[in-house]
Amino acid sequence: MRGRVVLLTGLPCSGKTALSRRLAERIGERACVLDGDEVRKTLCADLGFTREDRETNLRRIGFVARAVARTCGTALIAAIAPYASSRTELRAACEADAVRFVEVHLHAPMPVLVKRDVRGRYHNVPGFTGSDAPYEVPASPELRLDTSTLELDVCVAAVEAVL
Amino acid sequence: MRGRVVLLTGLPCSGKTALSRRLAERIGERACVLDGDEVRKTLCADLGFTREDRETNLRRIGFVARAVARTCGTALIAAIAPYASSRTELRAACEADAVRFVEVHLHAPMPVLVKRDVRGRYHNVPGFTGSDAPYEVPASPELRLDTSTLELDVCVAAVEAVL
Repeated sequence: MRGRVVLLTGLPCSGKTALSRRLAERIGERACVLDGDEVRKTLCADLGFTREDRETNLRRIGFVARAVARTCGTALIAAIAPYASSRTELRAACEADAVRFVEVHLHAPMPVLVKRDVRGRYHNVPGFTGSDAPYEVPASPELRLDTSTLELDVCVAAVEAVL
Repeated sequence: MRGRVVLLTGLPCSGKTALSRRLAERIGERACVLDGDEVRKTLCADLGFTREDRETNLRRIGFVARAVARTCGTALIAAIAPYASSRTELRAACEADAVRFVEVHLHAPMPVLVKRDVRGRYHNVPGFTGSDAPYEVPASPELRLDTSTLELDVCVAAVEAVL
């Protein structure tokens, strides 16, 4: 059995990290979280936030995720992944590897996101996704979850049902 | 059970790729090969052959390998990995992850390596490891194999015995 790549995509503060961690706990030792914020301190420490760098960022994360999935693990990617073309490329690469790919779009109304953003980045960081950098909403993700109305456990159950 | 990271290190044409592939076949679906030459076309396409870039190259491969091993897979790294400090760093990172690390040094006499090098890179490529770029011989690898005297199947059996 090949493994799976689960992409949790959405604006900052949409709940990607929390959901990925809870899912990893539930799935157990075969799961790993690849968190965009964490990866930028290590594998992608050389990258910035231009479109090209964001594309490279997801491509590298995808490389890791596919290696995990090819060896029967479940890679949970928690990353903004703002560009549709990048997500499509990742999906195609997974399919080429005969690895399952599941795209989950997390969202919430902007006032909720801004309220969750305790560091005030939506207002203060230049080039921040959702304020002055684009986020292309997924057209047909396997799952779309409004984290302002759904409890975390409900979101976890929904993803598990799709897997 | 956590997985394993196996580093096959050695000069060009020492037999790393062949051994990694045979081992992957033997181990089965939980194994993946991370080949230095392949990775330079994808995850590390931006890197050259300076010391710093070679260090970054192994660091990125190590990032992938550890993710595979943390999810119970076996990552087989076939890479020159010329610097002792880089290999030590990878070992420490694996230990921090509670992942088994096995270093295998492949070697053969230089005339044998040059004869295997059908593309003549030992003579023609500037900065080639073993001709005008350094290779720091591992001081205490888990295994050291002379691929000029040992058949491939013997090498496979030796690595399996250590794993």
